[in-house]
Amino acid sequence: MSIDTLFNPKSVAVVGASRTDGKIGHTILANIIRGGFQGAIIPINPAAKEILGLPCFPSLGECGQEVDLVVSALPQSLVKTVVDECPKVKAKGLIVIASGYQETGPDGAILEQELVELCTRRELRLLGPNCLGFINTANNLNASFAGDMPGSGDVTLFSQSGALCSVMLDMANDRHMGLAKLVSVGNKADISGVDMLAYLAKDDDTKVIVGYLEDIVSGKNFIKAAEDAASNKPVIILKSGTTSAGLKATVSHTGILAGADTAYGAAFKRSGVIRADTFESLFDFASAFSLQPLPKGNNVRIITNAGGAGIMAADAVELAGMKVQEHGQNERKAAIQQPQKIFKPVNPVDILGDVDPGVYVTAIKAAQTDSDVDAILIVLTPQAMKRPAETASAIVTCIDGTKPIVAAFMGGHETTLLRKELVAAGLPLYKSPERAVAALKAMGEYAAWKKRPPRTVTRFKVNRRRVERILSRRQRTGMLQLGEVKGKDVLGAYGFHVPTGALASTAEEATEIAERIGYPVAMKIVSPDIVHKSDLGGVFLNVSNRESAEDTYDLMTLKIRKKVPGARIEGVYVEKMASKGLEVIIGMTRDPQFGPMLMFGLGGIFVEVMKDVTFHLAPITEQEAIQMLKSTKSYAMLQGRRGQSGVDVVAIASGLQRISQLTTDFPQILELDINPFIVGEFGSEPVVADARMTLAPLPEEK
Amino acid sequence: MSIDTLFNPKSVAVVGASRTDGKIGHTILANIIRGGFQGAIIPINPAAKEILGLPCFPSLGECGQEVDLVVSALPQSLVKTVVDECPKVKAKGLIVIASGYQETGPDGAILEQELVELCTRRELRLLGPNCLGFINTANNLNASFAGDMPGSGDVTLFSQSGALCSVMLDMANDRHMGLAKLVSVGNKADISGVDMLAYLAKDDDTKVIVGYLEDIVSGKNFIKAAEDAASNKPVIILKSGTTSAGLKATVSHTGILAGADTAYGAAFKRSGVIRADTFESLFDFASAFSLQPLPKGNNVRIITNAGGAGIMAADAVELAGMKVQEHGQNERKAAIQQPQKIFKPVNPVDILGDVDPGVYVTAIKAAQTDSDVDAILIVLTPQAMKRPAETASAIVTCIDGTKPIVAAFMGGHETTLLRKELVAAGLPLYKSPERAVAALKAMGEYAAWKKRPPRTVTRFKVNRRRVERILSRRQRTGMLQLGEVKGKDVLGAYGFHVPTGALASTAEEATEIAERIGYPVAMKIVSPDIVHKSDLGGVFLNVSNRESAEDTYDLMTLKIRKKVPGARIEGVYVEKMASKGLEVIIGMTRDPQFGPMLMFGLGGIFVEVMKDVTFHLAPITEQEAIQMLKSTKSYAMLQGRRGQSGVDVVAIASGLQRISQLTTDFPQILELDINPFIVGEFGSEPVVADARMTLAPLPEEK
Repeated sequence: MSIDTLFNPKSVAVVGASRTDGKIGHTILANIIRGGFQGAIIPINPAAKEILGLPCFPSLGECGQEVDLVVSALPQSLVKTVVDECPKVKAKGLIVIASGYQETGPDGAILEQELVELCTRRELRLLGPNCLGFINTANNLNASFAGDMPGSGDVTLFSQSGALCSVMLDMANDRHMGLAKLVSVGNKADISGVDMLAYLAKDDDTKVIVGYLEDIVSGKNFIKAAEDAASNKPVIILKSGTTSAGLKATVSHTGILAGADTAYGAAFKRSGVIRADTFESLFDFASAFSLQPLPKGNNVRIITNAGGAGIMAADAVELAGMKVQEHGQNERKAAIQQPQKIFKPVNPVDILGDVDPGVYVTAIKAAQTDSDVDAILIVLTPQAMKRPAETASAIVTCIDGTKPIVAAFMGGHETTLLRKELVAAGLPLYKSPERAVAALKAMGEYAAWKKRPPRTVTRFKVNRRRVERILSRRQRTGMLQLGEVKGKDVLGAYGFHVPTGALASTAEEATEIAERIGYPVAMKIVSPDIVHKSDLGGVFLNVSNRESAEDTYDLMTLKIRKKVPGARIEGVYVEKMASKGLEVIIGMTRDPQFGPMLMFGLGGIFVEVMKDVTFHLAPITEQEAIQMLKSTKSYAMLQGRRGQSGVDVVAIASGLQRISQLTTDFPQILELDINPFIVGEFGSEPVVADARMTLAPLPEEK
Repeated sequence: MSIDTLFNPKSVAVVGASRTDGKIGHTILANIIRGGFQGAIIPINPAAKEILGLPCFPSLGECGQEVDLVVSALPQSLVKTVVDECPKVKAKGLIVIASGYQETGPDGAILEQELVELCTRRELRLLGPNCLGFINTANNLNASFAGDMPGSGDVTLFSQSGALCSVMLDMANDRHMGLAKLVSVGNKADISGVDMLAYLAKDDDTKVIVGYLEDIVSGKNFIKAAEDAASNKPVIILKSGTTSAGLKATVSHTGILAGADTAYGAAFKRSGVIRADTFESLFDFASAFSLQPLPKGNNVRIITNAGGAGIMAADAVELAGMKVQEHGQNERKAAIQQPQKIFKPVNPVDILGDVDPGVYVTAIKAAQTDSDVDAILIVLTPQAMKRPAETASAIVTCIDGTKPIVAAFMGGHETTLLRKELVAAGLPLYKSPERAVAALKAMGEYAAWKKRPPRTVTRFKVNRRRVERILSRRQRTGMLQLGEVKGKDVLGAYGFHVPTGALASTAEEATEIAERIGYPVAMKIVSPDIVHKSDLGGVFLNVSNRESAEDTYDLMTLKIRKKVPGARIEGVYVEKMASKGLEVIIGMTRDPQFGPMLMFGLGGIFVEVMKDVTFHLAPITEQEAIQMLKSTKSYAMLQGRRGQSGVDVVAIASGLQRISQLTTDFPQILELDINPFIVGEFGSEPVVADARMTLAPLPEEK
């Protein structure tokens, strides 16, 4: 059922409407009336004949008309009776304000589940519970107790937290930001963040989607809905709870390095969601996206009436990774030839404190016609000799929708007074250059995301059945840690190059294997009880002849038995020494919400000490994989440094894509490390030198 | 001469006072009168008999009384005549508003120099030129055209930029921040930032010093003045121009890695200056320091009326490196035993949206008596059912000056209305938890700096005379690049361990030296024309016998001659192979303002690729040197990792201290790299494996 009827009803009933000022049932009814809703408004209360001038009915069933939207202002214990009455008036939507559900614990969660089931049976879409309701400015419907009707506009805000929904409304009013809708989604029992994204993507009244979320339940659906929405219009989200990393049992490097927040970051990036870190930036960004066009590039022209403020703005632009754009040749000449010489053809353009507002206009128009300028930042400081209001009025005449223009008017009260006029004229206004620049940066990044090439995920030819057999056998026997031998077996089936080798269970076997594959060989202990082999002396490299192969076998097993008494030793893996190259780590950890997250990092210290790693959600394209490599600091190492040639980055990207395919094909793989993955020069085949995987247990049979 | 008379004059004359509204000479006079200054106010203008009700005189000399402070509102061309008249009225201070001096270029700089000299001869202290004047609320003197008189308070603002001085005044008024003084220092021709720090450190009206600076001319004096001031009261500075790195000719790693901003960062850290990155944080910090005591530790208790906002606050606290403090055992018990169960004994304390303001009070008092809590963050979201004003009034009754309390009242207009009351009651108010936390963090860092141990710089016994001889010979001959041989010579004299070695100029000599010091040896080309020896095949390691020593000599000299035709080859340096160990880089680059800046980083890729280095101004203490090591990401490498033991960090610290002493003793050393500096286990002697220095040319004789 569409949720559109919920937001655009012909008639609204408030069950639990009250005559007592201050009660929620009163506030909501009063808000609906005051908002100017033109449909039928029906208060329901058995103890009243009339409320706020409207005839009141004892129950929904007795109101004698169809009701599209029912707002329940009753306490939790009475909500069920409301739902039961809904079919009598053919209600399509229900808002449940009451708290006392999932947010209170397991008992509440059961109540909430029951409520959802009841609504589904009654064919009702449910907003809440534990919410403030919603406001829709398009039909003047304020079905909430959030506050007064905001101005009409094209930004829609939705919030999981009721209290922060109030904050958002308050902030929007304070900034004179017009809203299309304000939606308090509460516990998201039925209508979720995903539903909101899908609905708002197609909502013609909404040009910018802004959300506050504390959790995302279905990661995959979220990514799909968010990407769809972001392809249509900007989606800006503040996700809180970034640092409270959940404790998670993990043995892989990849798992250890992925923080609780990494998956959200990866998901937002994938789906084109613009992420805000604070409420202030949420609104800073929303204002720019709502009022101005996207920039075509990252060249910023700064126009200022104070040198110091210009320096600050230029600092901010450079720190944000954008460019302070010098004047073009022609423009430079024109500026110099101007008889007044009102400004120097440099950037920041300092038009000096006490000039005519017309000079701002001249400078802005010059920037608008300069093809090397992608965005314009106007900086204004209050100067006692000239009131800024006149300048503001002059500046807004320049807004033509061709290039984004943002303004930083520094100072206090006087600037605040100008905000209404400027915003109404379409100029996003900030109190500091830094915040204006942050908004420009967000616009630039979104513009770049929109221009991304189509995603084509390569499917490699692999031996899927072999992996299926290995994994299901391991899951059946409960041996969920795959060590080097089985790990390499799986990877080999997915096209990874694995050195020739075999498991020896006696010293004689070890020498036989070594002779067969040729020296030098590597010898490694194989035991389900030992994770970090090398720490315990379980790895010997460059074993170069028969005698030392035999000795190594005996010595290693002896040592391990001493160090880890009771360890089950399956034998020693003897394999061809990997050729030399650069050691990198590629791996995967499965996020409960967002699925497989791929990791890349340079081996050893770069991962362990510097934590210089990047993550990306699977499935991954070749281009994305190469982008992963490029976004590590240590990327320069891959390109080669003084006196060293680079390595085959495409081969690493291919490894990441193969892991992507493997872990997408097999959801039972929870974690995977290829460490080290040894890569050589261009055209050489990278080698899996060691590997490890963790599988999920088979679901218990009931 | 003290600048106190300038700020506290008994009489003020405005030269160039005007009857025309809008002219600077009118505004300043009007500001002085309107501000309520109780001393004599004397307008000077030959064309007027009376201005704004005051008798006007044709010239200073004709006013017939002593004038402590003269404000010149005249254009630059007339300023000299004003200075010449000053002695006639025994003036002590002069404010020059006019621009047209140093900021315009070399000609203006000469005019400014002349102005300063003239003032010095006339025993006048000069504020400006190119400034707005100053405001002193203690004597109601607004000798500026900055704007209206701000409220009285204990924060003093000073600014190098006039336009940003207006911004600061505007922002202070907007935030109801009371000011002691507002000083526009302009071009700082006489009264500089250093003078302001020294004066304000002792100014009883000033509790918090806040400055905006674009440059610092005398780094050493600045550090001293700032450290003195910061030992008395908080000094918060915004320094702009951080990214516009000046191009600087440099050959050392240290020089390349030190950005234009590195020295400022190091200087501020050394001197206890609290650095703000934006104007908003400048005021955010000032407000907290002005109104609240410093925290004793970094445990923060969060009290909120909305769960979501509490999560955001907790995120911010953790990201800032502070701790979200759980309730203590006793307090936990008390909270649980409370019959009302008004809040759960967790942190953030969520007191829920619609409770009585008294619950805030209970929660705050609990935090105040809990010895595990160092700071309290109150988060409030507007809730439609309860106006925040009542809550605000209740909260401010708790302020007792024992622990810092800061508040984040989220939302818009309503919060703004409360600000005045809250600030008046001593509660710093922020619009978001993030900004409140940033202020707490700044307070915590300043508190930690105040508790720093006394700085004792070790003086090592060294052979200073030997270095003196080497350097002056090189300076005289103009050979300012010291390569490996001479570099090691200098370092050896300062107690560094240098491998035994000698310069060979023939293959025979090379073998003789090698035989004498014992194999294996390292052989390196010595040429003043070759900086990166190893890139050109000028380094051979592990030469292990007579024959290969001879061959190496011939081969190396042959190759280098081919690769760098015309290079002056002095020979080949033959030295004992350094023992194995961890390679680090220590070095120095001399900042024009702040002098020698020491650098530390792990060798090779860590410096070249990861740029993982730290800087510190010389002279350095042992503790500071160890802190330098600890503040690199790669510090974990020094401590040893899986299966590897750590290295002698104290020995590295000692190396840094020796460089500190060397480069403090010899200002002619401009740059110095020890790369690599090979360090081993604890107790082992680190080795200078290679070194390089750049000297300053001798000053030209006149």
